[in-house]
Amino acid sequence: MSAHATADGRARAVLAGVRDEADARAYAHAVWACLVEPGDAVAGRLVRGLGAEEALDHVRADRVPDLPDLSASEFVAGRERWAPRLRRDDVDRALGLARRAGARLLLPGDPAWPRRLDDLGDHAPLALWVRGDASALHPPHSVALVGARAATGYGEHVAAELAAGAAASGISVVSGAAYGIDGAAHRGALSAGGSTVAFLAGGVDRAYPSGHADLLGEVQRVGAVVAEVACGTTPTKWRFLARNRLIAALGDATVVVEAGERSGSLNTAGHAAHIGRPLGAVPGPVTSAASAGCHRILREFDAQCISGVDDLRELVGLDTARASTPAERGHADLSRLLDALSTRTARTVDEVARLSGLAPAHVRALVGLALLHGLVIEEGSGWRRAPSR
Amino acid sequence: MSAHATADGRARAVLAGVRDEADARAYAHAVWACLVEPGDAVAGRLVRGLGAEEALDHVRADRVPDLPDLSASEFVAGRERWAPRLRRDDVDRALGLARRAGARLLLPGDPAWPRRLDDLGDHAPLALWVRGDASALHPPHSVALVGARAATGYGEHVAAELAAGAAASGISVVSGAAYGIDGAAHRGALSAGGSTVAFLAGGVDRAYPSGHADLLGEVQRVGAVVAEVACGTTPTKWRFLARNRLIAALGDATVVVEAGERSGSLNTAGHAAHIGRPLGAVPGPVTSAASAGCHRILREFDAQCISGVDDLRELVGLDTARASTPAERGHADLSRLLDALSTRTARTVDEVARLSGLAPAHVRALVGLALLHGLVIEEGSGWRRAPSR
Repeated sequence: MSAHATADGRARAVLAGVRDEADARAYAHAVWACLVEPGDAVAGRLVRGLGAEEALDHVRADRVPDLPDLSASEFVAGRERWAPRLRRDDVDRALGLARRAGARLLLPGDPAWPRRLDDLGDHAPLALWVRGDASALHPPHSVALVGARAATGYGEHVAAELAAGAAASGISVVSGAAYGIDGAAHRGALSAGGSTVAFLAGGVDRAYPSGHADLLGEVQRVGAVVAEVACGTTPTKWRFLARNRLIAALGDATVVVEAGERSGSLNTAGHAAHIGRPLGAVPGPVTSAASAGCHRILREFDAQCISGVDDLRELVGLDTARASTPAERGHADLSRLLDALSTRTARTVDEVARLSGLAPAHVRALVGLALLHGLVIEEGSGWRRAPSR
Repeated sequence: MSAHATADGRARAVLAGVRDEADARAYAHAVWACLVEPGDAVAGRLVRGLGAEEALDHVRADRVPDLPDLSASEFVAGRERWAPRLRRDDVDRALGLARRAGARLLLPGDPAWPRRLDDLGDHAPLALWVRGDASALHPPHSVALVGARAATGYGEHVAAELAAGAAASGISVVSGAAYGIDGAAHRGALSAGGSTVAFLAGGVDRAYPSGHADLLGEVQRVGAVVAEVACGTTPTKWRFLARNRLIAALGDATVVVEAGERSGSLNTAGHAAHIGRPLGAVPGPVTSAASAGCHRILREFDAQCISGVDDLRELVGLDTARASTPAERGHADLSRLLDALSTRTARTVDEVARLSGLAPAHVRALVGLALLHGLVIEEGSGWRRAPSR
């Protein structure tokens, strides 16, 4: 707790404009956040290799560092990108905006820093600005629920239902606060009294989209609104794409609820897959262009088909009741079917129905499932249990 | 052709009630079809082991045969099932009904016999009654399109569209002539001038369901209406289930269009999986109970997500334009993206857009896909091509 308090103090001090030894690192990180575009891997290697302050000294002095994973040309090219932004005024303005917005600065290594983001490696953020409760960045379980802005009523309904179900299961909902699916996801989580985190592509001092100012206020009240870019930074298309990797990384899994064939949500899905997070997609009517991207990732990228909160719980690894074999997957009825079958004598549907107490129509459906798994063998006009149950 | 003509002649002779040496085997098969319920594996081993006539002699004489894959107790139990039906009147009545219906009798080994059904092994049918064109049982490509009777307008629409698209691609549509998805599938194939095959659970002399009498007439005109049970046999629940295996076996692949959580179509899907046929399912709204079974087989049985006729073509192995890697899957745009990237220098979205001639929004979406496949590497504010393209 003391380290936490120290980090808090450091951030507060920086935000208050205080300059001392303890704040130097925080200030340097704030500078870096103003210099680079999100996900700059060269900056990432430089800062992680030397520390933010020494890295900044190298940039200011145009001195190539001696780092094993950074070439001189990478440094030179990086410096060319960053140098035009080396203006103290920008940093002070960003810190002033953050102070007024009540935004807290989090640095890598702080106790409150969400270590899941470090899975992004060189592309991990160099700092985070947080409004709301930073502990919301440490949910026991979380899911990134994302999708198209151009969502349908169906998509928004399903997003809200999944989010509410996730919240009721103690799963935090991470999203991007955009219109459409994102907004429905945050709202669903809030409606169930759950925690939710919104990553913005611009500075947290400004609600984006402005029509979601009230929603972002609610998110901030029970969860957190977060950005890696400094306050005062406008969202750009690139920043939206880069922001998506933070959403994917904070989630234990990513679920795309609705997405067109070329939706930006596929980019979030790509980030999730890239860092090894499970990927899910909600199917929809094949006649709906708003579901085409979901069907694409189901088909081409082996995403899990998510048709309800049980599937979502399983995807984030929360549900222990559903295990790997069908007989273990809560298919109690399938067990009853198998119990009513003999390994030696084939039994008819009616016999099985009588023995198991399941309705004949149900027995037939279960036999179909059991066949799919090789659990039963068809024989004459009946079925027997496969020996290697 | 002469062998075909012989088989034709034999069947015609049987149907005309003629009895001679050449007809004895056909008549014996017709008797077997009257004795057993569909898929009787003991009867299958007996008839395939001894031939239909000698097998019948053993049943009549209650003489246990000497067959390696048939135990005495299996024979005895089988004979107990069959003996009550050993009545010549029944057979003659069935043949009379077939003659009046213009149904042709096909036997295993006949040139017109659909060899795909032999993949059912011991459960392969012992005879087929065919109305219409028996050559429809030898389509170059085929798909079993099945689903719930309790279909929605969405499901019927998609079934008809897929069937019409399949027909336009030279893929025959195999189904069960039931209300709902089956009927829509046959109609879609007919509307596109394609071939279609309906397997009935009862005798082909009677349209079932009766409301589909006109539809079955149309199917028979351009394709075939087929049953393994003799004419005069009523459809029972068991016979519907057993009939499903013929649908699955004649299709190169099975696609479930709409199915409730415990629909009988899952049984067809189970048969398809059991004999190694590819399995597909059409997704639908997760709020629709009529799609729950489809989502279940997508989730639990690794069925392919079928959202259009291109997916269906790929499933039946027809589409050579779509191969295994994403760059080869007709993603010409993805190739353009990769061409515009360097393996050494990261390029921004705008640079790539300029170089590739793709819209920036499209570049971003493609970058997401390329990331999913590890084809590109994020670096700073841009991307470079992964070396092992």
